[in-house]
Amino acid sequence: VSSLPADMRAHVESSFARQGLMAHLGVRLTGLEHGRARITLPHAATLTQQHGLFHAGATSAIADTAGGYAALSTFEVADSILTVDFSLNLLAAAQGERLVAEGRVIRTGRTITVCALDVHAVSGETITHVATGRQTLIRLQGRPDS
Amino acid sequence: VSSLPADMRAHVESSFARQGLMAHLGVRLTGLEHGRARITLPHAATLTQQHGLFHAGATSAIADTAGGYAALSTFEVADSILTVDFSLNLLAAAQGERLVAEGRVIRTGRTITVCALDVHAVSGETITHVATGRQTLIRLQGRPDS
Amino acid sequence: VSSLPADMRAHVESSFARQGLMAHLGVRLTGLEHGRARITLPHAATLTQQHGLFHAGATSAIADTAGGYAALSTFEVADSILTVDFSLNLLAAAQGERLVAEGRVIRTGRTITVCALDVHAVSGETITHVATGRQTLIRLQGRPDS
Amino acid sequence: VSSLPADMRAHVESSFARQGLMAHLGVRLTGLEHGRARITLPHAATLTQQHGLFHAGATSAIADTAGGYAALSTFEVADSILTVDFSLNLLAAAQGERLVAEGRVIRTGRTITVCALDVHAVSGETITHVATGRQTLIRLQGRPDS
Repeated sequence: VSSLPADMRAHVESSFARQGLMAHLGVRLTGLEHGRARITLPHAATLTQQHGLFHAGATSAIADTAGGYAALSTFEVADSILTVDFSLNLLAAAQGERLVAEGRVIRTGRTITVCALDVHAVSGETITHVATGRQTLIRLQGRPDS
Repeated sequence: VSSLPADMRAHVESSFARQGLMAHLGVRLTGLEHGRARITLPHAATLTQQHGLFHAGATSAIADTAGGYAALSTFEVADSILTVDFSLNLLAAAQGERLVAEGRVIRTGRTITVCALDVHAVSGETITHVATGRQTLIRLQGRPDS
Repeated sequence: VSSLPADMRAHVESSFARQGLMAHLGVRLTGLEHGRARITLPHAATLTQQHGLFHAGATSAIADTAGGYAALSTFEVADSILTVDFSLNLLAAAQGERLVAEGRVIRTGRTITVCALDVHAVSGETITHVATGRQTLIRLQGRPDS
Repeated sequence: VSSLPADMRAHVESSFARQGLMAHLGVRLTGLEHGRARITLPHAATLTQQHGLFHAGATSAIADTAGGYAALSTFEVADSILTVDFSLNLLAAAQGERLVAEGRVIRTGRTITVCALDVHAVSGETITHVATGRQTLIRLQGRPDS
């Protein structure tokens, strides 16, 4: 039910599969449309800060990654992407069975793309908005990712 | 050669040791003074993005952690801390033998503390400034960390 | 059609009226609900950058103000507020008959409140999203504004 | 005592002189070197928030402008510049005889430039650090400013 061309979907999935950190943390790419990406991170003791909650570093890692693939999905397959900067407000304790990060393109351009980033913690039917942020990315035109 | 009282040093080191993510990534706390903390992350295939460089999520995780402990070191041992927000500019490709993140308190207050965050990549004698950022934290007075 | 109590509306309007900069720029408070504020700035040669567009400083000033009053509207009349930090992405050239800034509370808390900030340029029926941002504020409980 | 070529100095000063907002606020360009710019804003009732302090919008406007000219000074005269995003932490009440904003280039590049922004309030011999921030800018190569 997504408008994303098959070659772009393969492009994003192949890029995601090459990210060593995502595998090490246990992150999965669970949603991808034109200009949107969703990433899921199940809770594990290897992801915690000093109180057993998800570490803000884990929250940041998946927020940044979701935004990067949301942006990449609006480019050409021959392009790649770099994060220029990003910012995140931590709104609530990041506790639950899993974190779900969503990146959404606000504006895509020839050079600069801007994404909204949101992370929710999910526990059964309870969903908590744990972080909201924004990301500025630059397109590397004609410099493929692989 | 640091002015940090022994109980505060133990307080920070004990908090750091309880962070599951830091152990999972291989992060070490390599410097601590009043208002400053340094954190080191050796390169590993488990930390990479799609090109084999350090993932921005790893850079963020250590920047946020360095700032948090820099701030905590200026509080009382009975206090704990939360990151409210942070932002990071990625200045250069994060490649090298290790990343070194430094957090430095710009302003510490009863409620709000602000830290400067900087991450350098080190390869032999080559040092590259790979990220610079800022963090806003809130003090939880009289709510100990453990 | 707003749920805002009359004393809170008067509280916000009185605070706004005391801001010398808003009068000097020609800013008007054009919308106020619980957790939302809208501010309008008509174009003038006194508001421009070097190309005759609205200066980013004008865009920032109204974005910050809209967020501040959106947050204040969720407090008690006896409380006041300070901006801790804010960030803004400039998405498009800020040209048009007027700028309209909207602040919207994402999370309001005892200490920390976070707002989303958006600025649109309006020219006849053309509306352009020129800036998007976020703001962290702190509540000064029981310290009235005047 | 500055290394800035005369044509670049004239380029920056001419651009600054065309900014309607800077004249309307009473801002002066008081320092310019390669990669650094300083801007001064004397206190006036036209610049205040509801307590008579400098409005955060005034602080932002001069911080953004100082960073923009710091960045522009590292380019070619044929280039112009746009702010992509910026962020600011407000550290202390902005009160005093004048505000002084400094922009300093952290990294200048073919496309992306990053500046550090700092604003101090000055009252007689008292200097207070009132804001610190960061700015991402994009170079418009070969698209002169005027």
